[in-house]
Amino acid sequence: MGGDHGPSVTIPAALSFVNREPDAELILIGLEDVLRAELKKHHADTHPRLSIVHASEQVTMDDPLEVALRRKKDSSMRVAIEQVKSGNAQAAVSAGNTGALMAVARYVLKTMSGVDRPAICSIMPNQKNGPTYMLDLGANVDCEPHHLHQFAIMGSVLVSAMENIERPTIGLLNVGTEDIKGNEVVKATGKLLQLDHERGALNFFGNVEGNDIFKGTTDLVVCDGFTGNVTLKAVEGVARFFADTVRTEFKRTPLTMLSALLGRGALTAIKNRLSPSRYNGASLLGLRGLVFKSHGGADAYSFEWAIKRAYDAAKNDVLPHISTLIAELMPRNTETPEVATAPAIVSSAAGLVAGSTI
Amino acid sequence: MGGDHGPSVTIPAALSFVNREPDAELILIGLEDVLRAELKKHHADTHPRLSIVHASEQVTMDDPLEVALRRKKDSSMRVAIEQVKSGNAQAAVSAGNTGALMAVARYVLKTMSGVDRPAICSIMPNQKNGPTYMLDLGANVDCEPHHLHQFAIMGSVLVSAMENIERPTIGLLNVGTEDIKGNEVVKATGKLLQLDHERGALNFFGNVEGNDIFKGTTDLVVCDGFTGNVTLKAVEGVARFFADTVRTEFKRTPLTMLSALLGRGALTAIKNRLSPSRYNGASLLGLRGLVFKSHGGADAYSFEWAIKRAYDAAKNDVLPHISTLIAELMPRNTETPEVATAPAIVSSAAGLVAGSTI
Repeated sequence: MGGDHGPSVTIPAALSFVNREPDAELILIGLEDVLRAELKKHHADTHPRLSIVHASEQVTMDDPLEVALRRKKDSSMRVAIEQVKSGNAQAAVSAGNTGALMAVARYVLKTMSGVDRPAICSIMPNQKNGPTYMLDLGANVDCEPHHLHQFAIMGSVLVSAMENIERPTIGLLNVGTEDIKGNEVVKATGKLLQLDHERGALNFFGNVEGNDIFKGTTDLVVCDGFTGNVTLKAVEGVARFFADTVRTEFKRTPLTMLSALLGRGALTAIKNRLSPSRYNGASLLGLRGLVFKSHGGADAYSFEWAIKRAYDAAKNDVLPHISTLIAELMPRNTETPEVATAPAIVSSAAGLVAGSTI
Repeated sequence: MGGDHGPSVTIPAALSFVNREPDAELILIGLEDVLRAELKKHHADTHPRLSIVHASEQVTMDDPLEVALRRKKDSSMRVAIEQVKSGNAQAAVSAGNTGALMAVARYVLKTMSGVDRPAICSIMPNQKNGPTYMLDLGANVDCEPHHLHQFAIMGSVLVSAMENIERPTIGLLNVGTEDIKGNEVVKATGKLLQLDHERGALNFFGNVEGNDIFKGTTDLVVCDGFTGNVTLKAVEGVARFFADTVRTEFKRTPLTMLSALLGRGALTAIKNRLSPSRYNGASLLGLRGLVFKSHGGADAYSFEWAIKRAYDAAKNDVLPHISTLIAELMPRNTETPEVATAPAIVSSAAGLVAGSTI
């Protein structure tokens, strides 16, 4: 039901996905009438690998976390996550409110053993024409070194599974590349990651700077949720500024309009390189279940990529792999009892570049 | 002597500036022979308002802080700052290594009474076609609320003097706009700024997000140097990614090349809006003297803007105004003795957007 466009985007995406993946089954969660009507439009209301589970409510973009958590117990978001909890589904995908999604997922699924805090891992396009994975993007604003360490472990497993890279390179986001650079938390994190690197457990590249995200210096960039959120929103802001400026300037005179017409191929290619649809789908990592967040403004093609990411993560056993590596690298933490922490306070930080329109 | 191009840029900029400002005098610092030869090229070796002070060394972009501070005591950077210290000059402008400039300026000039830490304030273009001032951009990676509070005071005075705005709006960079958002330092800072707002001393807008920098939501954006540095380098990275993609895509076919030719006006306008030369010149604030940092890659037109900013800051009494407002708003701190702290560890974060080429 989620996102800016609702079932008119999610249903065609779901259909295209099940038709492309002959082993996949999808459960559609939401208002049964609405979903069935949309399926009928596509002559797919009897598709053998699509089923519907009714949910009477929806979490809106403006709903406070309280409402998503305590009031709307039959929201499509919550019911979807409960499908994962019960084992009916191997992963959930939502285009809804990121903060609510993380809070509900954390409440229903609980945090994975050995992980102190779940994190949001998103994907940025880079100049090497590949993806740069980055976490955390907003769930954790005050981080200790062991939190960033856990983010690195979870992110490394995710990249490895999704991109088929045996030892993904991990960069620690910092103000300079030398070891002596950075604030106290980052310097201490660097030491933890270096130890893991030396025993061959993680492929720690070292410190990276803000521009390295887009250079593609490392496969994964690790940072606290405050820095990650601010950085990605700033990048989104620049992308929008750029897009608006291009649009305005090419509409200014008949000559520039002609230029835009002739250069349409170039303009479309620029848009696709900078906001690639295939990078839609941020992962909520560190939970006892797989949850993926599509950008709210995604079109059907882009939403299908979020579904595909969730499917690949389930098929490639991302959860048990994270669990194993966390237990191996953070042995002291695996016995920590689940602590009831406040729900994550996040904003919609996921898939920012992917969502900006040029 | 500084920057990527040295006197071939700085001398024409200096000449153009003194000719435009009939009350201004400039002291050129560096290798006397080289500077005199460059002046001669422009038939200006006897200009009445241009003088030369010889300095036998230069700080390079790769020099460690140690070298800039302890070894090169006759560097053009150091001698320029000593001109400010002695009162011979009212401000210094350099296009050299930002970290070295801050360290040398701090060592020679000392920190202003009542200020715990100097900060770097840069200027970003925004969608309202105006400037967004932002600090700190890399000098202070671990900040307490009273540091951010001081940054807000200093930045507010700077914007007021430079932009002729009586009560500049101040935004606190955060992961969301609500008061409850953010890490502990930011939340405590918000309370300090709110108090100043209530007594009419500062015009605190509230929290802003990363994209607000480019929307131009507030005149000033305040953040710690870690977040500021990472954010601005990420923005620089995206800008470069844009620029490279635009260049590549418009060169791909004869049709797109024709389009670029016809749309040259639009492409130039886009470049100028996103990397405006007039925003060159970051301020090192909180020192007992005015120091400005030009982007290293600045051309003569852009370097002249950095000189003009330094001149305006001196003419508009930015230093005494900062001093007064700090004393007023932080009375307990004005008696604090000068503490010998470690030199600031910074990277060249200043003027990033201004420096990216499209």
